[in-house]
Amino acid sequence: MQQENRKKPRSNSKATLGQKALELHRRLRGKIEIRGKVSARSPQEISIAYTPGVAEVCMEIAADRRKVYEYTSKWNNVAIVTDGTRTLGLGSLGPEAALPVMEGKALLYKEFGNVDAFPICLQTTDAGEIVQTIKNIAPVYGGINIEDIETPKVLEIVDKLTEELDIPVFHDDQHGTSVVTLAALLNALRFTKRKPEDTSVVVAGAGSAGYGIVKILYAIGISDIVVTDSQGVISAARTPESMNKYKLELASITRPKVGVTTLPDAVRGRDVFIGVSGVKNLMTADMVKSMSKDAVIFPLTNPDPEIHPKEAFDAGARVIATGSYKFENRANNALVFPFMMRAILDNRIRRISQQLLVNVANALADLIPKEKMSPFNILPDVTDPRIQAAVNKAVQSAIG
Amino acid sequence: MQQENRKKPRSNSKATLGQKALELHRRLRGKIEIRGKVSARSPQEISIAYTPGVAEVCMEIAADRRKVYEYTSKWNNVAIVTDGTRTLGLGSLGPEAALPVMEGKALLYKEFGNVDAFPICLQTTDAGEIVQTIKNIAPVYGGINIEDIETPKVLEIVDKLTEELDIPVFHDDQHGTSVVTLAALLNALRFTKRKPEDTSVVVAGAGSAGYGIVKILYAIGISDIVVTDSQGVISAARTPESMNKYKLELASITRPKVGVTTLPDAVRGRDVFIGVSGVKNLMTADMVKSMSKDAVIFPLTNPDPEIHPKEAFDAGARVIATGSYKFENRANNALVFPFMMRAILDNRIRRISQQLLVNVANALADLIPKEKMSPFNILPDVTDPRIQAAVNKAVQSAIG
Repeated sequence: MQQENRKKPRSNSKATLGQKALELHRRLRGKIEIRGKVSARSPQEISIAYTPGVAEVCMEIAADRRKVYEYTSKWNNVAIVTDGTRTLGLGSLGPEAALPVMEGKALLYKEFGNVDAFPICLQTTDAGEIVQTIKNIAPVYGGINIEDIETPKVLEIVDKLTEELDIPVFHDDQHGTSVVTLAALLNALRFTKRKPEDTSVVVAGAGSAGYGIVKILYAIGISDIVVTDSQGVISAARTPESMNKYKLELASITRPKVGVTTLPDAVRGRDVFIGVSGVKNLMTADMVKSMSKDAVIFPLTNPDPEIHPKEAFDAGARVIATGSYKFENRANNALVFPFMMRAILDNRIRRISQQLLVNVANALADLIPKEKMSPFNILPDVTDPRIQAAVNKAVQSAIG
Repeated sequence: MQQENRKKPRSNSKATLGQKALELHRRLRGKIEIRGKVSARSPQEISIAYTPGVAEVCMEIAADRRKVYEYTSKWNNVAIVTDGTRTLGLGSLGPEAALPVMEGKALLYKEFGNVDAFPICLQTTDAGEIVQTIKNIAPVYGGINIEDIETPKVLEIVDKLTEELDIPVFHDDQHGTSVVTLAALLNALRFTKRKPEDTSVVVAGAGSAGYGIVKILYAIGISDIVVTDSQGVISAARTPESMNKYKLELASITRPKVGVTTLPDAVRGRDVFIGVSGVKNLMTADMVKSMSKDAVIFPLTNPDPEIHPKEAFDAGARVIATGSYKFENRANNALVFPFMMRAILDNRIRRISQQLLVNVANALADLIPKEKMSPFNILPDVTDPRIQAAVNKAVQSAIG
């Protein structure tokens, strides 16, 4: 494969995309709406879909609560819950400003997974109150999608809800990102002829995404991992006060070299860089050049990656993926959450296990046959009609 | 108008309606769904409706929170909130069993008002927690519809939310029922040639509906009102311990006769009976016979009224309305809530005032011209295309 043959990463100017987005949102005033699945205009229709006929349905469910899955929309309803503290890479913008993202997510849930997802943007940012509120509204939903809440608070919330709810709690920033990243990495390693167990990885960012990614890499046998946060390399050598319990967990399963404390030092000689730092331009061309030959570079931060794909490419990176729809190799969660939630709901999965995540990542990676693989083709497109069946099978194999 | 000319009240057997309802609900598995208002399949489409383009929209709203009404679905979203403690007339069936009713309500909201309403069935029945939960989820909604929560708790919840939220709180059992009842009554009084101020009324039931009805009747100048609960006539003569603060308020604006403590005694010689008791067959033919000539009988309890319309009719009642779609003169809230919420949202009303409710009731009543009025035609049909414009005008006149 010649570098010359590579299509230049496409890039619409951000202003243009933003302007188009503003215009679209102003025109639509909401990207989702409620639709009736049955007509209810005539007295006869109303008396069956509503009162008095509906009373019979209520009594059936009251007699056996599990029938709520048979007679109502619960089986397919998902709450997309945020507190607006970490909207995209933009920080804490409040619940109202988070709504356009949550609506977009609901749109993709329906478009690709036929999941009925509705945004819940919370007025509170208190972890205990967030947990309590979600527990209070849970009866209507078949699943919860936790979104764009700051770490480490969100990890505690997800742990607590997973423990206490009888419906699945999917944390897209953690679970979805880890799956799409692993899927992309599996193929990048196949393409660059590396074995996972011999691969060295640096993960920049120890928020929800970094946490999920390190854990899934470790689960498949990649043990040479270094992870950094804004203070540098996370290691047992750091003061415990500088680390929450999730970073302490990361410190216990990663292998930083003694004396290596900064990101530029950490990437030197390494095979893979995965950026989920939220920091634009965190990575430089020199840092890419300091890595192994045929380095794999995933600057996944949205909307602006840790390094522009073209710059990484010019500095010698072999395979590059970003989280953005502006570039090639879109390792975006949209490849995961609609399909995975569909399979989770259909199979009434209660707990998102690490095995489940690994299986789905493998299934996505396997959709790209070896002969079609290229530095620009390591992941299926979100419109690939094979995805849902592959994800279903992967989910079923994790419970079977 | 001859009694012989009257069409017999239609009545489908309850078993049949219930069976049809069960079958419909089993087939549909949910009467509502989420729909996208825009396609989001291609990378270009996704980059505008979702990331990265949406970031621009988020920042606009973060800079000016009010723009959430321009760029998102908030302007048209309504949460239908219940705790499942008073589902229809069936009692406390729990949140899951309440969902079919809430979905039916959402269906009608969309069908008749183009309102995007989504059910929220709460796991908690604690008043304070219900208030806190609704406040926590409020940012996404343009309005709240409180539904089927037991009294007096619900009245406190509505008062508190009305005070503390910056969006309207519509309590259908109180507000909607009072409007449709007053609309029906205004025409029944016109037809039987009575003036409101000279009319005597008995209201059986002092829950949300009874409370709302007594207050709206009082507001339009009907002062000769008696209201009863399960313990009989509510009056200042009763021990304060037998009454909550809302019943004390009712005692202060109603005029029971000294010594009259039971419903049969209370209806004797009265012009109007309004039943919102939740008690099937509370009213007997003898009680109807004991009332004024040309009595007006509204046994509104659902699904089974206080007296069957035919029985009331045979006992001499002149105008009869029920809350059910099984009979003529359907004084059902469906005539109010979709249209009224539409107007409330469009006009960004924050408080549901008594004047607003009275205006809407008058507008609905005025849709039946005097020459078309009959004992079986005192309310417009819910499909009457004139309703929305009339309600809009009424709502605007209340704020104008």
